[in-house]
Amino acid sequence: MALLICVTGRNNDKLIAKLSELLPKQTILQWPVDDASLLAKVEFVLAWNAPEALWSQLPNLKVVHSYGAGIDSIPVQLLPPHVEVARIVDPNLADDMAEYVLGHILSHKLGINMYLKQQAQQAWKPRRAKSGRTVGIMGMGQLGLAVADKLNANRFTVKGWSNSVKSLEGIIHFCGDAELGAFLQDLDYLVCLLPLTEQTKGILNAKVFAASPAHCVLINVARGLHLNEADLLTAITQETFGGAVLDVFETEPLPTGHAFWSHPNITVTPHVAALTSLSTAALQIANNYLAMTEGRELMHIVQKKKGY
Amino acid sequence: MALLICVTGRNNDKLIAKLSELLPKQTILQWPVDDASLLAKVEFVLAWNAPEALWSQLPNLKVVHSYGAGIDSIPVQLLPPHVEVARIVDPNLADDMAEYVLGHILSHKLGINMYLKQQAQQAWKPRRAKSGRTVGIMGMGQLGLAVADKLNANRFTVKGWSNSVKSLEGIIHFCGDAELGAFLQDLDYLVCLLPLTEQTKGILNAKVFAASPAHCVLINVARGLHLNEADLLTAITQETFGGAVLDVFETEPLPTGHAFWSHPNITVTPHVAALTSLSTAALQIANNYLAMTEGRELMHIVQKKKGY
Repeated sequence: MALLICVTGRNNDKLIAKLSELLPKQTILQWPVDDASLLAKVEFVLAWNAPEALWSQLPNLKVVHSYGAGIDSIPVQLLPPHVEVARIVDPNLADDMAEYVLGHILSHKLGINMYLKQQAQQAWKPRRAKSGRTVGIMGMGQLGLAVADKLNANRFTVKGWSNSVKSLEGIIHFCGDAELGAFLQDLDYLVCLLPLTEQTKGILNAKVFAASPAHCVLINVARGLHLNEADLLTAITQETFGGAVLDVFETEPLPTGHAFWSHPNITVTPHVAALTSLSTAALQIANNYLAMTEGRELMHIVQKKKGY
Repeated sequence: MALLICVTGRNNDKLIAKLSELLPKQTILQWPVDDASLLAKVEFVLAWNAPEALWSQLPNLKVVHSYGAGIDSIPVQLLPPHVEVARIVDPNLADDMAEYVLGHILSHKLGINMYLKQQAQQAWKPRRAKSGRTVGIMGMGQLGLAVADKLNANRFTVKGWSNSVKSLEGIIHFCGDAELGAFLQDLDYLVCLLPLTEQTKGILNAKVFAASPAHCVLINVARGLHLNEADLLTAITQETFGGAVLDVFETEPLPTGHAFWSHPNITVTPHVAALTSLSTAALQIANNYLAMTEGRELMHIVQKKKGY
């Protein structure tokens, strides 16, 4: 019985040390393994952008645990039906996400970027703050609701959009394709916090930008693949859409020379809106690993078909 | 009987139009007046940075109304004792002020300026948001309390400092010189919202910066003369103080070539934290003018000795 860590593109020393501390009696492996025969012992994989070749080499796999809030980096269609998929649900993550969204909305309202540019030119040009206070949130999961609560507490009008009918306090809720136009029509800010699924891939596209007010600003803190990047650039350039704050991208790190870097109406941040806390994540992973070994129910299991 | 508008350095056409609409039967003059004999009719002056020579030419003056929240531009020592001084108290002003302070604190926490600079260099360097959440507010008047409420609602720890002992919900309160050190010692952000008086002039000085943590950031949204500008530059350059967001300055507009424009740890905004709304201000001024003519009590009268 072993836990395999397959979190690619980063240094995992601290994560391994923390998990070893929490699971002192367990075998913890890191991909790639020197001795391929060890893979037969693996029942639990902690995964982030794992290579596809991995999944056919694990005959005794029981659980795949995402090292994040989303499972879009896990190819659930390649997994045997009995394998369970879990994700990290970090309450601090929701706080951080809400603070990122509020901070960037206030920054836009107050013209912080504009004044920073004026400061570089030693220009004194007072302007009233922007008055728009209507924010639409696509995705009413844990993160979407946390952002809605934070905005409500700060005197914003919050509209929500998701796939299912919901009744949520302080949120004007819209549901499905039929109500998307009504949801978008008077937004000052559009926040994307949807899970990434086949249905939501490319959902932020020309149709959405055309149905939103020309001054509306997109804040994408979900996944890069939600956004049709070319459609956004066209809409902003043609001034049928206002601008964007983007924390996630089709390709990360955002490639040098990408048009987003230099567009005056696009703010780029390097996927930092909500960084998983190592200690919180390690604790949830260790608890789920022990639950598996002891036959208890796992926390934060994902419905594989829905993808969240 | 006449109302004299002496608001210098700006175009007052809209203000005069609004006041004429609200006070259709009254005589409204604007400084400078063509016919000096008209000054004998003036009982009420709306003033902002009025020339000193004005005050000795108004034999029938009863009320001086500031065109702002502060009365520091009005030389109360030049006024006869019976003259009342009033100021604008705009509830939206407090909301705007609170949102400016919260927005700039979140911007600093989230590194919005840092990422904007990285974006200009096409640099992808993720960093965790700053964790500090302790904010000290100097000045516990209407604006200070509004900022405290807003920060409390957003999970900040709020400390307050003022001249008198107060018990305020959700605020750890400190009083007078003796408690200034205890107030400052663990602040992540220091907000100045004091009235400008002889006692508070230059209060943000080397002593205050030395008693604050080295990473502490000043947000001055009160008056430029609260701050000893040279002391701030020295403390930031010597890294005994963290930085500043400054909306007010000794000289406004901030002169070209001033060191604040180009300092990497200083953010300059052009006195925009709380802009008096023309319609709210005009309504309060008109109401106070009518109160004077009808012998009713005026709103938002200032204690001239205290200066607020």
